Amino acid sequence: MQDILERLNAGEVVVGDGGMVLQLERRGYVKAGHWTPEAAVQHPEAVHQLHREFLRAGADVLQTFTFYCSEDKLELSGNVTDITGAEINEAACDLAREKWLKGSALVAGCVSQTPCYLGNHNEAEVKSLFKKQMDEFLKKDIDFFIAEFFQYVEEAAWAVEVLKTSGKTVGATMCISPHGDMSGLPPGDCAVRLVKAGADIVGVNCHLDPTACIQTVNGYMGLPEFPFVVLLSSLSLICRSLTRWDVHKYAREAYEAGIRYIGGCCGFEAYHIRAISEELRAERGFLPPASEKHGLWGAALEMHTKPWVRARAHREYWESLLPASGRPKCPSMATPEYE
Amino acid sequence: MQDILERLNAGEVVVGDGGMVLQLERRGYVKAGHWTPEAAVQHPEAVHQLHREFLRAGADVLQTFTFYCSEDKLELSGNVTDITGAEINEAACDLAREKWLKGSALVAGCVSQTPCYLGNHNEAEVKSLFKKQMDEFLKKDIDFFIAEFFQYVEEAAWAVEVLKTSGKTVGATMCISPHGDMSGLPPGDCAVRLVKAGADIVGVNCHLDPTACIQTVNGYMGLPEFPFVVLLSSLSLICRSLTRWDVHKYAREAYEAGIRYIGGCCGFEAYHIRAISEELRAERGFLPPASEKHGLWGAALEMHTKPWVRARAHREYWESLLPASGRPKCPSMATPEYE
Amino acid sequence: MQDILERLNAGEVVVGDGGMVLQLERRGYVKAGHWTPEAAVQHPEAVHQLHREFLRAGADVLQTFTFYCSEDKLELSGNVTDITGAEINEAACDLAREKWLKGSALVAGCVSQTPCYLGNHNEAEVKSLFKKQMDEFLKKDIDFFIAEFFQYVEEAAWAVEVLKTSGKTVGATMCISPHGDMSGLPPGDCAVRLVKAGADIVGVNCHLDPTACIQTVNGYMGLPEFPFVVLLSSLSLICRSLTRWDVHKYAREAYEAGIRYIGGCCGFEAYHIRAISEELRAERGFLPPASEKHGLWGAALEMHTKPWVRARAHREYWESLLPASGRPKCPSMATPEYE
Amino acid sequence: MQDILERLNAGEVVVGDGGMVLQLERRGYVKAGHWTPEAAVQHPEAVHQLHREFLRAGADVLQTFTFYCSEDKLELSGNVTDITGAEINEAACDLAREKWLKGSALVAGCVSQTPCYLGNHNEAEVKSLFKKQMDEFLKKDIDFFIAEFFQYVEEAAWAVEVLKTSGKTVGATMCISPHGDMSGLPPGDCAVRLVKAGADIVGVNCHLDPTACIQTVNGYMGLPEFPFVVLLSSLSLICRSLTRWDVHKYAREAYEAGIRYIGGCCGFEAYHIRAISEELRAERGFLPPASEKHGLWGAALEMHTKPWVRARAHREYWESLLPASGRPKCPSMATPEYE
Repeated sequence: MQDILERLNAGEVVVGDGGMVLQLERRGYVKAGHWTPEAAVQHPEAVHQLHREFLRAGADVLQTFTFYCSEDKLELSGNVTDITGAEINEAACDLAREKWLKGSALVAGCVSQTPCYLGNHNEAEVKSLFKKQMDEFLKKDIDFFIAEFFQYVEEAAWAVEVLKTSGKTVGATMCISPHGDMSGLPPGDCAVRLVKAGADIVGVNCHLDPTACIQTVNGYMGLPEFPFVVLLSSLSLICRSLTRWDVHKYAREAYEAGIRYIGGCCGFEAYHIRAISEELRAERGFLPPASEKHGLWGAALEMHTKPWVRARAHREYWESLLPASGRPKCPSMATPEYE
Repeated sequence: MQDILERLNAGEVVVGDGGMVLQLERRGYVKAGHWTPEAAVQHPEAVHQLHREFLRAGADVLQTFTFYCSEDKLELSGNVTDITGAEINEAACDLAREKWLKGSALVAGCVSQTPCYLGNHNEAEVKSLFKKQMDEFLKKDIDFFIAEFFQYVEEAAWAVEVLKTSGKTVGATMCISPHGDMSGLPPGDCAVRLVKAGADIVGVNCHLDPTACIQTVNGYMGLPEFPFVVLLSSLSLICRSLTRWDVHKYAREAYEAGIRYIGGCCGFEAYHIRAISEELRAERGFLPPASEKHGLWGAALEMHTKPWVRARAHREYWESLLPASGRPKCPSMATPEYE
Repeated sequence: MQDILERLNAGEVVVGDGGMVLQLERRGYVKAGHWTPEAAVQHPEAVHQLHREFLRAGADVLQTFTFYCSEDKLELSGNVTDITGAEINEAACDLAREKWLKGSALVAGCVSQTPCYLGNHNEAEVKSLFKKQMDEFLKKDIDFFIAEFFQYVEEAAWAVEVLKTSGKTVGATMCISPHGDMSGLPPGDCAVRLVKAGADIVGVNCHLDPTACIQTVNGYMGLPEFPFVVLLSSLSLICRSLTRWDVHKYAREAYEAGIRYIGGCCGFEAYHIRAISEELRAERGFLPPASEKHGLWGAALEMHTKPWVRARAHREYWESLLPASGRPKCPSMATPEYE
Repeated sequence: MQDILERLNAGEVVVGDGGMVLQLERRGYVKAGHWTPEAAVQHPEAVHQLHREFLRAGADVLQTFTFYCSEDKLELSGNVTDITGAEINEAACDLAREKWLKGSALVAGCVSQTPCYLGNHNEAEVKSLFKKQMDEFLKKDIDFFIAEFFQYVEEAAWAVEVLKTSGKTVGATMCISPHGDMSGLPPGDCAVRLVKAGADIVGVNCHLDPTACIQTVNGYMGLPEFPFVVLLSSLSLICRSLTRWDVHKYAREAYEAGIRYIGGCCGFEAYHIRAISEELRAERGFLPPASEKHGLWGAALEMHTKPWVRARAHREYWESLLPASGRPKCPSMATPEYE
């Protein structure tokens, strides 16, 4: 198994994993509102199982379950009193490792935005938080770093600068819209800033539906400075979820936009990652293990006893499906409260 | 831990588990269209983890992962060539047992409708399929039986008659609408037939949203013949899922309708079962373990940095929420193809 | 021009007119909330023009613009201080007559439910209100009577009993649902009661969408006592209107259900009545005058400059159209406040 | 009654009229797809009545019913064989005159885009079509000119240049989006071009919902060259109509954006124009005649027999109403076919 950059340089399509905190919240192991990853220590078997599902669905990279695992965030949340960040970060590295998982994937050590940055914008303090996490990861065997879920490019750039001191490959993904980051810097400028800070791979993640993600990434793609873009889309809202058929379309569009590292974020479950793997099976040359339990485009419906169900066993049916909400008393679009 | 009937007789509210085949399909272990449970042998850790989630969410009963595990159905599906039904049924009993799960719940051995019934309506043949499954369960340590997911009351009654020969408590739940079963028999008549066949507990499951489930059960409740009703609601369709707040409402309505065994079916995940447990915490006297990772009614949002998110940390907000589909080009209701 | 009963007996399809009070409210001549018809005196040219539109659209019967024109209702509304009911009723008869309209249609003198009935249920008093209106109509030249918009069958039957004393044909339409009238009497029983009171034609009008109207009328149709049924559908709510294509479907379904007097109620405009006439052009043997300004099924789009508009010039396009609301932040169904 | 420019210069709010061709199509006098105004000759009483409704609703300006009345368009439509454009234009001027209408309003002679422009872009030919119409209007007594419904600014500017030779005031409104006209010229540039051609008043009309109209006009407003802006919004699509409450909001927003000539386009009926008049009653100092038949904000519901209807008799209820479509099987947004 080669290095992530070698693989991307060789033209390989790299499939990422899905959203861990949101899924583990639904399973009962993460507290919504806090979103901290202490389950890596408290319930390792639950974290372990979710890694295994993403691996089975075709993920080439597993991200450590270390979202919001900076010391300041853990302290602020107040729901982790007897476990240190170091314990979580180290346990999470072990959980993502292949020896547990009976499969092989690269492991990316992940850091994310800190409350400290919003509080005081103190570069030294924020960087020391990232440095501490990086050192903990380096005690374990991780393959590269990802700085993810940053709303301000300045903080993301600081994270990249710290992580680059490790000598390892560093990717950085921001949760920004086509209008730019929270400071108003357009996507293209954010990307340039991250590359200048040392990022080898840049991308977007979360807060956006796939179409908006790809539109945002287009702001990245026009620039010559960076070779690789990662796309991690989100579908996390209540009662809103992408179908596997939506993800086929998303994976194809991302591929056609030139993106070669494609994964998911909040709301992506194993069947979404499998859909990426299945859509790009020709380009990748293989199907993931989980496809043994999946008829492509509903093929397993061909033997249904009811003719109108058998009629669904083909791609055209699912591609043209307009899924109903089942909620006629609800709107189809909400008004964002911050508008 | 008492017997299920003792607990119901004592007035206890019994919480069931959620939907296993649908959830394990999403995780990559069950094939949609076939819906057979060979993962109990092939991927026991995945089945085991899902049991653990439901247990942690407050389930008092775990159903064995043996849906559609009659020999005729396994053979018809064609995707289980080297594993016998006996192997699956026996493995599934072990997986639902508490020694694995570090918790305690009653284990219900489950049988479901057979292709054989639809094919030839041969009572002896259908009953021998149920008898074989029952004997496999009885090699293991299960607490009682559930016959579930029957569309015809005749077949359900045959299953009950077989299972009662074990001497154990038998529950039976049908997937029927307020209009009755597929032969047109109204819910109340179905219930009488099941009770006459020997069922100790009767109920409905699947194919219906909660409101319709409760309406159907009302067809059961008016009759004096049977003491206990189980309610297993479903929310399985693409892009349609109940919110945890919907489930609070559903659990309360079911309780007020006099139902004392309340669980979920296809689409119910751990957070739905937890919502049942949380809604009925006063009646049951305790919260489930998973509630340590859940602020009731969004309480964990109270410390959010953004004021409009903090404003959501109360019950009124979530109860009055009309979740948007995010799909303005889709309808809110679909036209059933069989109409 | 024959009598209405002769025409119906001869198998003719009789087309009714549309909704006058609602349309004249939009045009500025009727006060919403009161819905009284003083415009017959105050703005005869506006009433006259609307009659002319319905006539031109194919109406065989024009109803006098005398909705809610009982003395008690006029007094209660308080917005008609210097005009008597007699003046309105008489003016309305003239306005519906063909000498003004340059066309020919039967004129039906109309009475509707009274506040008096709800107030005291005094048969003598309610009947005297209907008697007074009837006498005013009989001073003018009307062809037959319609008692319309009754929520209680008892009051409708009283109206029929009074109107029958004139020796003229009497029709009666109630605004009831498939569940029956406001006293809970099922549609079929309402119809029998009306026929026993002397009604020659019975029907339903208003408060219902076309599908529910036809479903309600089915409650009427099974009975042998009455030969003729009139169907007046409604589409009056804010932002809800039937398309002309919906009305094609409605007219066909009504015809196939055996109904031979088909019109509209609140919300039906001239183009809806024209759609009834156009759908039933083969059965009636002619098109109405207004069809000179209408390409059937969008035929006039055939010469549009844009190809995607030309592609709409055929029946299949319009029949399969699912019209969007354009309001993604609104629900598709509302919750009735009286539930 | 002063000149339109004197009134606007004096700070008066001028209310326009609504959409004539669309409304007369519904009434049976205009052919959809052709949209030509031969009804001015064929059915003057219908045109006359609609003018009267707009006047009664508070319109200060009535536009002649001469949409698409250039000779080339009339010939192309093929549905006007025995009537000349001159006959229509002259009849239309008479119909909009106050002597018929028993009220007073300014009369604007209107020209609109020509098929000739799209066909050959021949300036001399297109201008001669406008010149012919202008000369016909000048035989009658009109107050000023409006060039309306132009998709290309070049053709609109040609129309203005011709009309200015009359010495009369000229307004020009284009049906363009915030992205500009069909040639891609932004709204502000379109406006400058029109003003340079001699337009005294510029504006937008049709093809847009009110919010987009105001957004487009903002592209006009920033420029110093022109003093007056007219806003004619549209709501013409099947099953989409603005409520009177939507129009209150639209009128207020237009007023606050500095617009002082506010009317409607396709789909605006008398009750929409009345809503403009009612919203701006304080600014204008009076209510229109049609308000005698309208309780502001549902005031007439105060005396309804049902309490939940009485509860609607206030502004807050109607302002917060989210009108349901009543069509759960339809989407809320459509996909434009030309995308």
